[in-house]
Amino acid sequence: MRVNAYAAPAAGQPLAPIVIERREVGANDVLIEIQYAGICHSDIHTVNGDWGPQPFPVVPGHEIVGVVTEIGADVTRHSVGDRVGVGCMVNSCGECTNCRGGDEQYCQKGMVGTYAATDRDGTTTQGGYSTHVVVDADYVLSVPDGIDGAAAAPLLCAGITTYAPLRRWGAGPGKKVAVVGLGGLGHMAVKLAHAMGAEVTVLSQSLKKQEDGLRLGADDYYATSDPSTFEHLASRFDLIINTVSARIDLDAYLGLLAVDGTLVNVGAPPEPLSVNVFSLIGGRRSFAGSMIGGIALTQEMLDFCAEHELGAEVEVIAADQVNEAYERVLASDVRYRFVIDTSTLV
Amino acid sequence: MRVNAYAAPAAGQPLAPIVIERREVGANDVLIEIQYAGICHSDIHTVNGDWGPQPFPVVPGHEIVGVVTEIGADVTRHSVGDRVGVGCMVNSCGECTNCRGGDEQYCQKGMVGTYAATDRDGTTTQGGYSTHVVVDADYVLSVPDGIDGAAAAPLLCAGITTYAPLRRWGAGPGKKVAVVGLGGLGHMAVKLAHAMGAEVTVLSQSLKKQEDGLRLGADDYYATSDPSTFEHLASRFDLIINTVSARIDLDAYLGLLAVDGTLVNVGAPPEPLSVNVFSLIGGRRSFAGSMIGGIALTQEMLDFCAEHELGAEVEVIAADQVNEAYERVLASDVRYRFVIDTSTLV
Repeated sequence: MRVNAYAAPAAGQPLAPIVIERREVGANDVLIEIQYAGICHSDIHTVNGDWGPQPFPVVPGHEIVGVVTEIGADVTRHSVGDRVGVGCMVNSCGECTNCRGGDEQYCQKGMVGTYAATDRDGTTTQGGYSTHVVVDADYVLSVPDGIDGAAAAPLLCAGITTYAPLRRWGAGPGKKVAVVGLGGLGHMAVKLAHAMGAEVTVLSQSLKKQEDGLRLGADDYYATSDPSTFEHLASRFDLIINTVSARIDLDAYLGLLAVDGTLVNVGAPPEPLSVNVFSLIGGRRSFAGSMIGGIALTQEMLDFCAEHELGAEVEVIAADQVNEAYERVLASDVRYRFVIDTSTLV
Repeated sequence: MRVNAYAAPAAGQPLAPIVIERREVGANDVLIEIQYAGICHSDIHTVNGDWGPQPFPVVPGHEIVGVVTEIGADVTRHSVGDRVGVGCMVNSCGECTNCRGGDEQYCQKGMVGTYAATDRDGTTTQGGYSTHVVVDADYVLSVPDGIDGAAAAPLLCAGITTYAPLRRWGAGPGKKVAVVGLGGLGHMAVKLAHAMGAEVTVLSQSLKKQEDGLRLGADDYYATSDPSTFEHLASRFDLIINTVSARIDLDAYLGLLAVDGTLVNVGAPPEPLSVNVFSLIGGRRSFAGSMIGGIALTQEMLDFCAEHELGAEVEVIAADQVNEAYERVLASDVRYRFVIDTSTLV
């Protein structure tokens, strides 16, 4: 099956239309007619070659929402006509401790990324900036009614990336959660933590997006460029979700944690960070990291979002606006996620 | 009350006999006739001036076991004749969130250290290398029968320092715990984790103390000087207790943690450590720190040790051997804790 897509032909080159081949629908596969594909910052890192050589041409996109148009003989989880989603992975070994424990993203043989990865059959995966995709049914999520399709797409990466650590470290009533950075990930963290019942504070470089932050569910909003923020909020938070991938003064942020508090990075700066161990010992604090989430947890997150009627804040674009959108993502000029309407690819 | 003690007269000077004044027994105070005082590495750091200027002369010692010989009018928790212990703190505000939560060591006004600290009445505290000490009854622990007095003394610091993170991060049956370094702290971590039912592995620079480690309760013993250790044990542990205060290759040790695993430092190197955030994100891992433990938890630890009939491995010395003992601690030539028999001070 040959389908329209948008691909980066080489590292750092603008994306352009391409026709790619999708595999035959296997016994456990689902064919999805894609409706929306979110643009994640990691799409840009990948096609720019920031994360090493890639199997170009690369069709990015791992925030996919669409409708099932065909299923394999063994598929029972999904039916033709269902609205479904695909996130950052499309396969894993299914047998290791981590896969069996529901953490397929930590598959000991390596999860298979939704694009630019080698699938278990040896083929190269291609992502969601496309009209159709064929995915193993076990890695396909149900997108419940009650979430707009475009608003649902970013949940498959930005949503689960922030939902997983909020759940793992117990965000909920009586807990004080800070979110560092109000971008694609940060705005989801604010919405989710608020919906979980936590008291939410945004820590952003400036107060530029303060009004937005409060509208999205934050109780407080502070500028990290103001040194008094770090005095005023000392030892305050149970959990800090750091969505910023740039280097930060880790010790300063750790000082904002109460006893037993945890600072979780969901992004990783390319260079190592420096940490003064006294910042941890002085409050039995933890510095942690978290990467997306397993399939079952991703489904739980989608159901949670439907129940709480929340989705991402999106700006829907046509496929031919993708290069411009990349520029704007790099300039932090998006509130808060671009989503490609893939019907513009036909 | 004037009592015999051993003090460092100035930074880096050998300890020598001194006579010090102990305060009158107040309404909530307990007078303790000291029997044993353990020698902790931090005693040496303090008197050497490694941790900044000190109020010399300094009588070190925060691993104290003795017998109550007098109580104040309001004391109900302890009686004359009871065997008791004093650890790293002798006071705190008692009113802040952390004190009320049982974490007096994280008192927001600052806990009062057992020596070289300013007590809430403005006097300077003096530690356990002494025949007697007067301590607020709320900071005095009961030492249950069934633990030898000398073996109990190090529990008040080395014991609680390792017990607290083992409890906080769930050491127990089905959990794999590694202990980095087999010294005063490490040997207690091995004994305690084993008694809690965890599978225990020692990670030591060499295999020199392997026989000891296995005798103390370790199931496995590996040399960290052998690079294959880090391959062989990759992603293995739920919890790593790092008792080594020197710089370590944090990323290498984080690679030994399973998904959701935690590496806890109980010592702090003076310079910051470098951490590659991918080491954490790649397994939803945490890097944490922990400092001693609250009074209630310290009592729980002593009761646990009595129940499991365990204490520290000690070498009992006379007070006039303390300078020699300091040299041997610095040379890691002690298995595993020196304890001063304070009856040699009279």
